This record gives sequence, structure tokens and C-alpha cells, in this order.
Amino acid sequence: MKKTFLGGLVIILSVGVLSSMGVCDEPAISEATSECLECHAMQHPGIVKDWRDSRHAQITPGQAIAVKGLGRKVSSRSVPKELSDAAVGCAECHLLRPDQHADTFDHNGYNVHVVVSPQDCAVCHGEESAQYQKNIMSHAHKNLAGNDLYRQLKTSIIGKTHRTGARLSYREADSATKADSCFYCHGTRLRVSGTRIRDTELAGEMEFPVIEGWPNQGVGRINLDGSMGSCSACHTRHTFSIAVAREPYTCKECHVGPDVPAFPVYAASKHGNIHSTLRKDWNFTTVPWTVGKDFAAPTCATCHVSLLVNPDGEEIVARTHQMNNRLPWRIYGLIYTHPHPLSPDTTIIRNKDGQPLPTDLNGGYAAKFLIGTEEMKQRTTEMQKVCAGCHDSSWVTGHWEKFEQVIQATDAELRTATGLMQEIWEKGLAEGLEKGKNPFDEAIEKKWHLNWLFYANSIRFTSAMAGGGDYGVFAGGRYQLSMGIAEMQEWYNLRWKPDHGK
Amino acid sequence: MKKTFLGGLVIILSVGVLSSMGVCDEPAISEATSECLECHAMQHPGIVKDWRDSRHAQITPGQAIAVKGLGRKVSSRSVPKELSDAAVGCAECHLLRPDQHADTFDHNGYNVHVVVSPQDCAVCHGEESAQYQKNIMSHAHKNLAGNDLYRQLKTSIIGKTHRTGARLSYREADSATKADSCFYCHGTRLRVSGTRIRDTELAGEMEFPVIEGWPNQGVGRINLDGSMGSCSACHTRHTFSIAVAREPYTCKECHVGPDVPAFPVYAASKHGNIHSTLRKDWNFTTVPWTVGKDFAAPTCATCHVSLLVNPDGEEIVARTHQMNNRLPWRIYGLIYTHPHPLSPDTTIIRNKDGQPLPTDLNGGYAAKFLIGTEEMKQRTTEMQKVCAGCHDSSWVTGHWEKFEQVIQATDAELRTATGLMQEIWEKGLAEGLEKGKNPFDEAIEKKWHLNWLFYANSIRFTSAMAGGGDYGVFAGGRYQLSMGIAEMQEWYNLRWKPDHGK
Amino acid sequence: MKKTFLGGLVIILSVGVLSSMGVCDEPAISEATSECLECHAMQHPGIVKDWRDSRHAQITPGQAIAVKGLGRKVSSRSVPKELSDAAVGCAECHLLRPDQHADTFDHNGYNVHVVVSPQDCAVCHGEESAQYQKNIMSHAHKNLAGNDLYRQLKTSIIGKTHRTGARLSYREADSATKADSCFYCHGTRLRVSGTRIRDTELAGEMEFPVIEGWPNQGVGRINLDGSMGSCSACHTRHTFSIAVAREPYTCKECHVGPDVPAFPVYAASKHGNIHSTLRKDWNFTTVPWTVGKDFAAPTCATCHVSLLVNPDGEEIVARTHQMNNRLPWRIYGLIYTHPHPLSPDTTIIRNKDGQPLPTDLNGGYAAKFLIGTEEMKQRTTEMQKVCAGCHDSSWVTGHWEKFEQVIQATDAELRTATGLMQEIWEKGLAEGLEKGKNPFDEAIEKKWHLNWLFYANSIRFTSAMAGGGDYGVFAGGRYQLSMGIAEMQEWYNLRWKPDHGK
Repeated sequence: MKKTFLGGLVIILSVGVLSSMGVCDEPAISEATSECLECHAMQHPGIVKDWRDSRHAQITPGQAIAVKGLGRKVSSRSVPKELSDAAVGCAECHLLRPDQHADTFDHNGYNVHVVVSPQDCAVCHGEESAQYQKNIMSHAHKNLAGNDLYRQLKTSIIGKTHRTGARLSYREADSATKADSCFYCHGTRLRVSGTRIRDTELAGEMEFPVIEGWPNQGVGRINLDGSMGSCSACHTRHTFSIAVAREPYTCKECHVGPDVPAFPVYAASKHGNIHSTLRKDWNFTTVPWTVGKDFAAPTCATCHVSLLVNPDGEEIVARTHQMNNRLPWRIYGLIYTHPHPLSPDTTIIRNKDGQPLPTDLNGGYAAKFLIGTEEMKQRTTEMQKVCAGCHDSSWVTGHWEKFEQVIQATDAELRTATGLMQEIWEKGLAEGLEKGKNPFDEAIEKKWHLNWLFYANSIRFTSAMAGGGDYGVFAGGRYQLSMGIAEMQEWYNLRWKPDHGK
Repeated sequence: MKKTFLGGLVIILSVGVLSSMGVCDEPAISEATSECLECHAMQHPGIVKDWRDSRHAQITPGQAIAVKGLGRKVSSRSVPKELSDAAVGCAECHLLRPDQHADTFDHNGYNVHVVVSPQDCAVCHGEESAQYQKNIMSHAHKNLAGNDLYRQLKTSIIGKTHRTGARLSYREADSATKADSCFYCHGTRLRVSGTRIRDTELAGEMEFPVIEGWPNQGVGRINLDGSMGSCSACHTRHTFSIAVAREPYTCKECHVGPDVPAFPVYAASKHGNIHSTLRKDWNFTTVPWTVGKDFAAPTCATCHVSLLVNPDGEEIVARTHQMNNRLPWRIYGLIYTHPHPLSPDTTIIRNKDGQPLPTDLNGGYAAKFLIGTEEMKQRTTEMQKVCAGCHDSSWVTGHWEKFEQVIQATDAELRTATGLMQEIWEKGLAEGLEKGKNPFDEAIEKKWHLNWLFYANSIRFTSAMAGGGDYGVFAGGRYQLSMGIAEMQEWYNLRWKPDHGK
Repeated sequence: MKKTFLGGLVIILSVGVLSSMGVCDEPAISEATSECLECHAMQHPGIVKDWRDSRHAQITPGQAIAVKGLGRKVSSRSVPKELSDAAVGCAECHLLRPDQHADTFDHNGYNVHVVVSPQDCAVCHGEESAQYQKNIMSHAHKNLAGNDLYRQLKTSIIGKTHRTGARLSYREADSATKADSCFYCHGTRLRVSGTRIRDTELAGEMEFPVIEGWPNQGVGRINLDGSMGSCSACHTRHTFSIAVAREPYTCKECHVGPDVPAFPVYAASKHGNIHSTLRKDWNFTTVPWTVGKDFAAPTCATCHVSLLVNPDGEEIVARTHQMNNRLPWRIYGLIYTHPHPLSPDTTIIRNKDGQPLPTDLNGGYAAKFLIGTEEMKQRTTEMQKVCAGCHDSSWVTGHWEKFEQVIQATDAELRTATGLMQEIWEKGLAEGLEKGKNPFDEAIEKKWHLNWLFYANSIRFTSAMAGGGDYGVFAGGRYQLSMGIAEMQEWYNLRWKPDHGK
């Protein structure tokens, strides 16, 4: 005996429920959502508060789609009639597309699924969902799990260390370790592994799906409807707040370590300083977002995502959820700087040596997999429109020229470091790129990737974000990079005596 | 000629003083406190402002104890009559129990003591004070200073480095160094070493006690009445604000470094993100604290200390100042994860090898000193009640199972690292656990304890707090742990050639 | 055909412009500034918003100089008549002293210069500008670029790594790297290298100066009028807000890394905790700044810069922009603690061995270049007046005695580390201080300077700022210092066998 989704969404004005919740002047809540709230409002008051504070609780899709102009947030051409006139509550999302989700289960007569996916969100927010699929972030799970070289790097970091005599090797990490480390940000692959019966406080025994890889909100999560990504990575459940997504603290969740120190560099930059001091007076919720009215310095979202207008309401840049389309260069995660990949699926890339990398070990581009000069120029222009909101052209040009010189300078240093590594491999002091060997797992190889995975990286971030100073030098920047190379050379000198052989 | 404490507390309504302070509609201030304020309000305006902003200045113990139900903050069964009807001012605390404090001195006719102790606070807040004595934190000084192995570790870190030929050894650190490093957080042992006469601006020459180890607000401070702890470690003087204590910035004072990175992990977690963005709209002062009304994500206090209720006012968890009683596992500070110690006094623990450690070097528990399975389960359940405020059972179960697997995985890595260290000791390449030898002070031993004191530690924190990502991998997590073990092996390989002997 | 500066500043009430900007009850805007705004308000709305939010837009110099007493912000004895009666807008600063600036160019008939210098600001803020010239920070570019030893250190960190056989050497860094690293904070040397014609959206082709080293806001920037410094380093353009400058986030821009961890140490201290929690309720804009009214814990500015009064309006300490004049000791950047240099120009210092350093390698002072005991005592007293705002004398004395012991303890450790380095040089295992050799560039030398440039440094900061605990021990403090020395000794032992020779 299952209630149908549509039946469940008949709109009622459940006065008792509403008044007990202190809701007034707010949109009707569907019958199905009201039923959810009857139990869950007391059981999980935190998320219900979040939802109640959310835009979803305060407007119906029908009202939202009627907004004209740049303020419109519902980007789909139309919304299903049955969703149109009630708040977007529990049922509106968790009952959507039940046939598509492997975790759909009968819960109190409803076909509920636990994990809401970008394809669910796409019902109203189609454009953002489509853009996000072109965002390299939506492929974050697959790009890591499906690339042989990355997998070797990953295993040498999170795998189980195994000693055999004087040698170490690394065995595949357990699933909890994987989910809690790389795939915490990259997203897990979800899988329903069975069901579990639980004796609930309010309704006695109930059956629930058991989901491997859950909970997770990584940006490239493989969902139970096969889709990739997690909108709640940034639009934190259950407020799904644009204000939260626009604050740098959201990006910090995954961009804080030495591998990708965007947050600490930002926080130490002039922009971050202004944000820290003045954000309490800014407006993080208006759409479109007005430079010179709503805020006085950019956050991550300002430069990379948001729809910006000037005080006359004229568009400066369009909203994008393909977050690299104001970015010509890819400056981290790999040895050398290079133009952004053409496809968000980077597993297809092969360099001239057949490796799944966007450059070869000498820095040469795997050009046919990367964006070209025209596209790079167009992306640069797009980003510079944002800069121009507060900076004149001599500032912007000076900044950008400096940035492009600095990324070249870091690449030159890494050419030195990598040349040294290659020589060490060549001399047989470490096992490198031969078949079956992991080029990342020996102590000297770890010393090598520190230089590109952390230090050169940090330097480029400080340059890109005008957050130089300490993060560009002493806090994991040039100081550590020059020391890292010096230590590689010293390691080599200690082991390789040209006169005496090894 | 000394005024008695009780005499000094006769309540007067010193209109001149009050009006000069702009105080209206506030409780009477005792004569003694009024006298204090006459000088100190101008001399130290900062702390007087703090006090004036405090609850202590705005309510009398008599009014406070009359509060019914969960909102009551004064937990003692009764308060002394002479304290009942005036604000809790300078005199009310600094004149309490004068015979018990070694720093009591005659100040302007009053028996003042400088350092207020938990036993003083216990006059009104008896329950919290009693709980705190069962908190391992109250024993933090003693547990460090009174454990031979910990003392060796401490000396090898903060002691004076001494070179003799090719060897380094470490001599006892000076008292300032000790007070400013380990005991800054663990708490100093206070001692009155004499008196000092000072020519004061307002009252000419006056005599004051000289207190060794002062100032200090470490959590396990040994006070001048023999008690242990410092309430002002978290309830910052002189507001003693519950709001300050509930913010993560308070815990950060001692939980920020790589040895115990609770704050940075929190700040990079989803919870921390929500807190950073939305805390400006939350209510940090209400008692009890209502999930789904006062706040939308937990701070440290929410999970570990606070009395929480749901929006119906029903208790979710009780307040506790024994901060490990929602914690089954102890995940940091030592090599291996283990059940929490039974007694807050950990100096009594002995493992099977007679060492004062909760596990042996292979990870076996010193079980009779640790809580048992039932207690662990009960503590887990208690913590999960907090989780359930915002998360359904599949989320909570999934999180917890992952956490328990991850701590096992870190323990396995440390078994490898420690096995390597034991082999190095065995081969005589370092001096280990023999009598009179410090197992922590050689360079290779330092490389070893980096792995457990920092890296495995950080990994466990990220897992416990769902703050994975960078802190679990690249920012002092698995990346550094796997490298740390690889460097130990490499160190060993360079020095130990099976074929040629040492 | 150029409009004169004075002509351009004729005051008009451009009603159209004003009403379009929503400005009411605000001072008149000069004709010149109105012309600027006509284009720039739409082109760069962000900075125009900043300016509009600023004090400069809300008061005229004539009104500002009329303020009596400690609240007066315009410190010059008089302001030029032509600036007196209009808001301080674009033109008022960018047209000042046109003959003095190498970047002055004809822009729409006005003699505009791009880079506003401290000498421009001095027109109204003469005292602060004069104090700042005595601040060692104003000499930050010169002190780094003009000191042979520092230049060697700098090149070994940011220079281009060059391999010749088994040796590394460092070549001069490119200009972008320099500007983006050391000189990001120290300030670049600006130079007009030519002009560039750009096709502007609103006015067609226009010619602009090209400025090498721009953009930059480093504290010791060499400006195009020959002056040193950048007021906007702290008084962020274009609000030039005292509130922003008083927040620790401003100082963090350059004081955040392990070389000078003032911000992280502060943020983890009791002061920082109080600030993080309560700053939302503080008043950061009042002049003078009242302890016990406007704020409840110090920020960087409170202790080092601000004019402070007690609630009776009596001065506690005077404002200073010579930021070391409440500081007896210089605790970072060099091997040993030492009294502050007498002159802000430190390139003139020579130690007994003729090196441009304030101490010799054994820690002996280059005394004639440093402040004496009396001056140190006076500066200590000045700082302690700030402490006394919230702390009694036993607290302040205890804190200060501890601090002075701790800096001695760190110096003793560095004597050990430096002695080891000297022995390594002596034995020929590294090339040290001989002519033409860089004493900082080899791997072992880098291991040596880690100890003083980072670790001892951090320890001293924690002690000075009562921010002990983790930053004094585990987060780049004593743990790393003791390990650093142990690793130097181990390096030495591996390479130097007394019995066998090298």
C-alpha cells in the first residue's frame, strides 16, 4: 500500500502543524511534507530549523519561476505542475524521481530516497545542474579513481604500509579510509548494499536501505541515480543557502591544505582582510549580486561563480557553475601549469608518452586535450571583468602579467626538481616509471612530489589571488621549494658517487 | 586591623559609585566590592567592563538559585546567605575562603586572594566543579608532571639542548619555559614565594604576594588552595561568559596545533563552515540550549559539554563538565587509540610491561585502568543523541562505523612505525627503553613520535569530527604519516646493512 | 591643455551626480572629483563604494581639523585652503603634488598620478607620516635590498635554482617573483618604464604610464615621489578605514607565516579568543579608543599603535606610527633577540665582525647601533601601561619576567645550533662565511636557519603575546626547534667521523 508521489503532494493547509511550527504568511506545505514534519521536526530539529530558514520554505516554485530578469533563481523553463504551489519541503525532493534512485524505499507509505542528487535539483535548477556537469569538479571521483597514475599516488598516501625486509609497499586502503580521505572531497561512489531493520522510537520497527559510502557530500559523488556531484557540497543542507555558498568558508572545506591552499591564501590577502572585517555589513543573499553595493571585496564565489552586476543593474559577468570558465590556467594538482582540460573527464587525457597526464615530465602540453589560446584569452577577459569592478586597467594588467611570469618561474623550478628525479631513477637509486612500479611511493619520490603537490602550488595560488607574502615564501612557498630541491640534491649526493659507483 | 569578609559584604547601595558607573536596575553591590571598584575601575577599566557585562553583575545568587528547571545555572543546593543578595563582584570571589588560599594578603583591610580557584566557584556552581574534578583535564598538570615517560618526552622537547661530542642530551627546562609551553595549557603549579612591596599610584606603598607560576589559566593548574583546575581557562575572566565558552575559539586556545588539531579540523568541516557563516545570528547565551532554535550546527561545547533540549524543551543530553563522558575512545596524545581511562588520574596506569601507558607498545590495552565495553557503548549512545539533533540514523551509523574503522587503520600504521622503531632499538642504532635512557630524544625517535603525536592523531580527529579532506590527507594527515614511515625505513636502510653489519 | 589642480578643485554641488549616488547631508564634492566619478563610479563601482563608505567622503579637512582634543584625526597644523571645504575625493589625493610624482600624466585634462604616497597623505596627516618614517617598516624595502647578507638569504630562497654537477646555486630571481614574494610585504621599488595607449570603453584611446613593481602595497614601498612606505598597506584603499586597520586581519596580511606568526599566535591566545567571540559588539571606529568601553581585549593596534584612554577620557598611551616604540626587544627575523635598532635604516649596522647584523654569531650586540637600557626600560613601561588596562601589577610583572627568561632560553638554543653550524663550516662540510660564499644556501644551512627564522621566533611570539600552548610547542615551536637541532647533529655525525677523517 503505497501512496503515490502525486497524491502525497496534494496541498493542504495543515493548520495544526503550521501553527505549532510558528509559520505564518508562508507558502502552503504539501500533505506529504506535513507528514514528514510530524515526526522529523522533533526527532531532528536541527535540519528542520535549517529548512525553515531556507528560501525553499518561503517561496513556491510557481512564485519563484515567475520572477523576471536577473533575479530569477529557478532556471528551468518550467516546473512540474504538482510542485508549483507548495513550499519545497522534505517530500518535494526526497520523493522525486523514485524509479531512478537505487535507495528508494517504502517509508510510511511513501517512496522515499535518502540521497538527493543533482538530477533531482535539476527539476527546478536545470541550468546550474547542466553547467555543473561540465565542471571538472563533478567528475572528481571518476577522475581520481579512473586514472592509473593518480591511483598509484593515492595508494602510496592512504594505502596500508607493508614492510618486506628493507622495502615498503602499499596495499589498497580500506573503504572507510578512502571515504574519509581523498573521497571526502572528491566524492564517494554510493551503493545500496542491503537493508537494515531498526526499532524506531516513534513508529516501531522500520526497514531502511544500507548505503555504502554514505554519508558523503564530495563534489564528484557518484549518486544512486548514476548522476555525479553533490549540490549540498556547497549549498549546505538543509538551508541550501546562497549566502553560505558565497562565503569562503564553504570552499575552505576542501581548499585549505597545502595541496590547494586557496582559503588560507585568501584569508591572508587584502581581499580576505576586507572580508574578515566588513562581511558583517555585507549582503550575501541578493541575486544578482551588486558590486559596489552588496559587498566591498570578492569572496571565492564572486570571482569564480556568481552573477555580478554594477549599481545600474547591468551584468558584469554571468553566473556559472562550470567553475573553470573564468580560468585559463590550471595551476595545481600536477607538476606543471597548463591550459585547462577541454573535457571535465580527464581520464581520457594522454601525453606524448602515453601517460594520463596533461603535460609530459618535461612540461610539454598534451595540447589536443587542453583548451587553446583563444579560449584562454576569452577566459582571462571574463575574469578581468570581475577585477575591473574595483581595479583600473593598470592594476589588472600589472597583476596578470606578474601572475603569468610567476607560474613560469615555478614551472622552471619543477623542471629542475623533476630532472633530478629522472636522474635518480636513471641511476637506479629509485624505481620509477617502469611497468608495475609506483613512481610516487619511495621516500625520495615523496620528497619530489612535495615540491609540486604543495610548494609550487602554493606559490601559484598566492600569485593568482594577490595573497603573496608569507604563503608565497615562508608558509609552504619558495622557502620550502628551494629547500625541497636542495634536499633532493643532497640525498642524491649522499648515494651517488660518480667516482666510486653506487 | 582587618575588616572581616562578612563585614565587608554588608550590602549598601552606594549611589554615588553606581551612578558614576551608569548602572541602573541592577542588583545591589556589596560594600566590599564597591571599595574595590573605587580604585580598580579606573586602574583596570578593561576587566571592570568585562565584569559589568557579565551575568555576575546582573543577578544575585539569591535570584539565580530561585530559577526553576533546566534554566538554573547555580547548581549548588544553597548559597551562603551573605552572598545571596548582592551581585557577584570582586569581593564575592576574591575574599572567599581566605584561610584556604596561600596567597591571601591584607589589602586595604581585606583578606584578598589573587587566584580564584574552582573550589571558590563551587560555592555556587558545585555540580560543575565536582564534575570537572572527574574530568581528565583537571589532572592535566599532575598527569604530565607525574608520569616518568611523559616527563622524558617533555624534557626532550622543551629542555635545554646540551652537546657532548657527537651526542645531544636535554637538561631540565627553566621554570619560565615550562610555564610558557606545556604548562601553559596543562596548568602550572602555583606557589607563593614571598612578598613584594610596590609603590602604587593611588595608595602609596602596598605589599603583595609573589606567586610562582602566575599568571596562568591552564586547565589543570594546581591552585594555592590545593585544588586543581582553572574555570577561567574556558569561562574567560571577568565576563565568565557562557557564550565565550560555547564558541570554538575558547577550545582553540589549547586545541589548535598538530598534536590536537581540533579547531582547524572543525573550522574546515561542514559544521565549522556553517558556524563561521551563521554564528552571527545564533544565540549563545540561552540555558538550556535549544537545537533547532538557538543554533544550526554544533560547536565543541554542543557535543562535549552543553545541556541540550529540543524545541519542546525536552532534554536531549544533560550538561557535563566531565568532558569525556560522551567519548568512548581516546584518540590522541599516545601511540594507539584506546578506551578512555577510568580515573582522571592517569599516573596510576601501568601496561603489561609496567610502563605508565594505557597500551603497550604493540597496542594491547592496560584494560583494568580503562573503561569497559558497556561504558563505551553508553558514551557512544550519549554522543549519538547529539548527532541525532540534525542527522538521521543512517547518517549517524554510517559516520560512526567509518570512524571506528579509521582509528583501527591508523593504529595499524602505528604498529608498523613502532615495529620499525623497536627494530632500530634492538639493532642498537638508537637507545631505547633501557633504564636511564630516553626513548624520545634521538632524531630517529623524534621521527617516530611525529607519526603518532601528530599525524595519526590528525587523521582520527578528522574522522571523529567529519572534517576529513585536507586535514585527513595533506595537512598533517595520511600524506605525512606515510612519508614519516617511509623516512624511518630509509633512515634504517642507510644505517643497517644486513650483509656488512652496522 | 591642462586644467590646473586648483582649478579642478573648485567646489560645485553637482546635484545630478549627487542624487544619482544617493548622497545627502554630505560634504560638497569638488568639481574635479565629480568628473572622476562620472566615469569611474560605473567602471569601478567597488572602490567608489569603498570611498563613499569612508570618512574621507563624509567630512571635509576643514571640519576635521576643527575637532578639539584627542578626537582630532588630522594632525597637520593646517590644511591647504583649497582642500579645506570639500570631501577628500579622488582628485584631492590623485592630483596632489603633481610635480613630485614620476607617474603624473595628463588624464582628461588633469595631472593625475596613479600611486598616492605617504607624502601625499602627510598633507593632512603629517604627524603619522613623520612617525612612520621613523618606523623600521617604512625602510622595509631598503633594509632587505640593501643588506648584502640578507640579499644572500633572499636569493637562496627565491632565486632560480641552478644545477652544476652535484652542486646547486641560485641566480637572481625575476622581477615578478621578487614583487610577489619578499617585496609583496617589504614593498617594491616603483619605476615608470614607459607609457601604454589603451582603447577605453568610455573615452576612446588614452595614454597611461606603465609602472614597474605595480600594483603593490608593501609597507616599505619606494614610491614615485621617492618617499618610502604605503599607508594603504594598513589603511586599505579606498575606505582608509581606522576600523580595518585596528582589526588583526590587517596585520595578518604580512604577519601570518612561521617566520612571523603574530596572527595565528594572537588568534589562539586568550586575547584572540575574546576578540573572535566579541568583536561584533565592539566599536572599532572611535578616536580616542576607550579601554573598558569600546573593546574588551586588545588587537595588534591596541598594543602597538593606538591612542588609548580610560573611561574618564584620560590618556593611557599616545598614538604612534613608529610601531616599535612600545617594544624594547626585537624578537624575530634574526638569530638572536636584541634591543631594537636605533635607526630605522638597518643597512648601516655592523657587528664586531663587520657583518651587517645587530648581533655577531655568538649573540653579542652591535651595541652602538641599538637602543640602550634606558630606552628599553622606557618602552617597556609604555607597553605595560597598555597591559594595566586589564591586568594588575602581579600579572603584568609575572608575564614580563617570564617573557624575558624565555627569549634568553631561545637564544641559548640558537647558540647551540649556530655553534654546530660553525663547526660544520670549520670542518669544510659546508661553505660558510668566506668571501663570495653564501652562508644560507646549502641544505644543512637551510636546516640551520629554520631554527631561528621560524622556530625560536614562534616561541618568542607566543611568550610576548601570552599565546603559549601549541604555537610555543607543537605548531612550529619547541618541538620543531629541538628536532631541528637534533637533525643538524645527526647530519653532522653521518658525515664527520673523527677517527676516519671526512
